[in-house]
Amino acid sequence: MRPIPPWPRLRRGLEHDYTILTVREDIVADPRTGQEHPRVRIDCGDWVNVIAVTREDQLVLIRQYRFGISAVTLEVPGGIVDPGEDPALAAARELEEETGYVAGRVVALGSVHPNPALQGNRCHSYLALDCVKAHEGHPDAGEDIRVELHPREAIPRLILEGSITHSLVVVAFYLEHLRATAPR
Amino acid sequence: MRPIPPWPRLRRGLEHDYTILTVREDIVADPRTGQEHPRVRIDCGDWVNVIAVTREDQLVLIRQYRFGISAVTLEVPGGIVDPGEDPALAAARELEEETGYVAGRVVALGSVHPNPALQGNRCHSYLALDCVKAHEGHPDAGEDIRVELHPREAIPRLILEGSITHSLVVVAFYLEHLRATAPR
Repeated sequence: MRPIPPWPRLRRGLEHDYTILTVREDIVADPRTGQEHPRVRIDCGDWVNVIAVTREDQLVLIRQYRFGISAVTLEVPGGIVDPGEDPALAAARELEEETGYVAGRVVALGSVHPNPALQGNRCHSYLALDCVKAHEGHPDAGEDIRVELHPREAIPRLILEGSITHSLVVVAFYLEHLRATAPR
Repeated sequence: MRPIPPWPRLRRGLEHDYTILTVREDIVADPRTGQEHPRVRIDCGDWVNVIAVTREDQLVLIRQYRFGISAVTLEVPGGIVDPGEDPALAAARELEEETGYVAGRVVALGSVHPNPALQGNRCHSYLALDCVKAHEGHPDAGEDIRVELHPREAIPRLILEGSITHSLVVVAFYLEHLRATAPR
């Protein structure tokens, strides 16, 4: 089968800077025909999500108001990797800032592209083990976060019944499941 | 625990229309303090992904060049739900357009929010059974798609080794796994 050729960018479009991301519409060429097509690109930093497990084998989940859907979601802690920051440290930092839990050990589960059609960034998933409550958390101004503990075995039900709907949180739980059950 | 209040929108910002999506920066108020915060919102239609299984129990996967990451990805067929279109019909339509396979039966697996922080839309996952190759596919102008058949049992390895990296494709496979193994 013939390989898939890359589509060259002919022109960069006007870029709009929204602080947490930039959006631009480039013009690319179909290498088979030379025909021009617009393509939207959203640039932002990498993201992290962390499945945090306490010493009592409970999961540390959070509820917060999400502006995309104008509703409250149930998620794992996570956030944006700072420029130059190690994603594993970002995961531990976001966990502590959002929940006050400190991880004993952080294990990488893998990373995905949130949306390779539009975005260049990755979302890294981590498992944080032996988590202990150290304080009440230090969320950013503009974050209103509630912390909840749930038993690990509740996750499939929470996903299937639509209580957990954030795609990247669902991904983190599947990566954890695949790593836990993969042949060695 | 006190409930999480919604954050009212004070002002709609300027909207930029990129045809496949619109981006806007609104100003919202923290209901606890009244303090103003900017929030970016990306509006677009719902998306569908379809795990297509042939009568020989092979999965119909596609490779295509993705502009967000400037690289080729391995994914399941999928796309944008047309305005007013039933998502199950959109799944069958995208499958046939992109691959030439026609589904015998389409089963809903569930839906997620691709990114509830930024986007209001949903991504619906489907399982298409008894798929039969009817023609070579009719991809949109601007799509260069290669069809590949893979055995079902290869999926965990393809995800863990990073051959499948699209978060919403990973979600579709987890939803299928959860539905297949859920207690009745």
